[in-house]
Amino acid sequence: MNRVITVERTLDATPRMEAERFRQLLAGRGTLVVNLLSSPGSGKTSLLAATAQHWAGKYHMAVLVGDIATDRDAQRLAPHVPVIQLTTGGACHLGLPLVQQGWERFAEQAFDFLFIENVGNLVCPSSHDLGEHLRVVMLATTEGDDKPAKYPKAFRTSHAMVISKTDLLPYVPFDVSAAAADARSVRPDLEVFPLASLSGSGLEPWCDFLVRQHGLRLAETVSTGGG
Amino acid sequence: MNRVITVERTLDATPRMEAERFRQLLAGRGTLVVNLLSSPGSGKTSLLAATAQHWAGKYHMAVLVGDIATDRDAQRLAPHVPVIQLTTGGACHLGLPLVQQGWERFAEQAFDFLFIENVGNLVCPSSHDLGEHLRVVMLATTEGDDKPAKYPKAFRTSHAMVISKTDLLPYVPFDVSAAAADARSVRPDLEVFPLASLSGSGLEPWCDFLVRQHGLRLAETVSTGGG
Repeated sequence: MNRVITVERTLDATPRMEAERFRQLLAGRGTLVVNLLSSPGSGKTSLLAATAQHWAGKYHMAVLVGDIATDRDAQRLAPHVPVIQLTTGGACHLGLPLVQQGWERFAEQAFDFLFIENVGNLVCPSSHDLGEHLRVVMLATTEGDDKPAKYPKAFRTSHAMVISKTDLLPYVPFDVSAAAADARSVRPDLEVFPLASLSGSGLEPWCDFLVRQHGLRLAETVSTGGG
Repeated sequence: MNRVITVERTLDATPRMEAERFRQLLAGRGTLVVNLLSSPGSGKTSLLAATAQHWAGKYHMAVLVGDIATDRDAQRLAPHVPVIQLTTGGACHLGLPLVQQGWERFAEQAFDFLFIENVGNLVCPSSHDLGEHLRVVMLATTEGDDKPAKYPKAFRTSHAMVISKTDLLPYVPFDVSAAAADARSVRPDLEVFPLASLSGSGLEPWCDFLVRQHGLRLAETVSTGGG
């Protein structure tokens, strides 16, 4: 069981250069940073817990989890993975300064993957670069397949979309192909991963994708980085 | 079938006095203004369509529906109710100027209820007074019963909470009593309405509540209003 640490601060704007510096720093340490966006209750925390269990012992991952209030998500993740709770005190998204402050609390630990679970909000987080190498947007089958065009920026700025809660497909009016097509109308090269975190169905392609991205994106970041 | 009209504008801050003026104006005309907040995909549009069908011919209602992009929600509502689509062009919440502009498009039509379906976002809309008499927050059973304390402002500033998609309760880990208790920990006098818009279950107590509020809140607004 990992100890839960809470870092509280309200955020302001993030200069692009500082995000780039953080991206380079983490790439140099071999850590792929993944920024995970979605509405409240789409299943971000459950996906991270399931990913940690899938990889147990194979890859080292850590989580910075953002919330407006409470450390509930960190408490849920602590049995599975090193986690720091970031509390925004009302702000609707995470900003880089709080992410950096949280990351420093891990001290000298080395990770293959650092996941940033953003505040549950399909709008505002999409405008803030947290120095991530990979941005992933999550859409639950219970939210309806019409969301990508209605909330386009989160989908346009992401590399991949996770369609969560596929175990509820028999009970909800959601068409996976329609959702994928809608998302690709705003981001044609979006990778799509339908899965159910609670049953583990679809988890393997998602985890394999992350491992491939670890190799690709870190090499790319290091090669394009300035001195 | 009602015609869909789209009003587009980006928003700025709303002075409190202007909201109060709008609240008085609509109260004077016998129109209860209801501001409906939730995450994307909680079922705001479905609830408004079901409410309109429940009342068909009995009460006159209209909807101002806010989205970042597309007029999909207005298209869905148009067969049931007079509707104006408000498009924020990226902004994460509705502001009063856009609401007023939309309302003016209804010209001289008289309504018992004017619903404002806010942008799907459980954070930012809670900070903006749209001149409503009643604020209602909606939480779907698929979002988890732990949301009120994690997103407290939407619940603290609302008069009522609709728990939607109760038809999915057999398939999701959601406890209605726990969600109500969590919400009442931030707003003790919150009224709670569990319902399923698609089946109509629980719709009657919700509609009866609105009718009671119409009498109570309009009388209250007029009596406390300045000249």
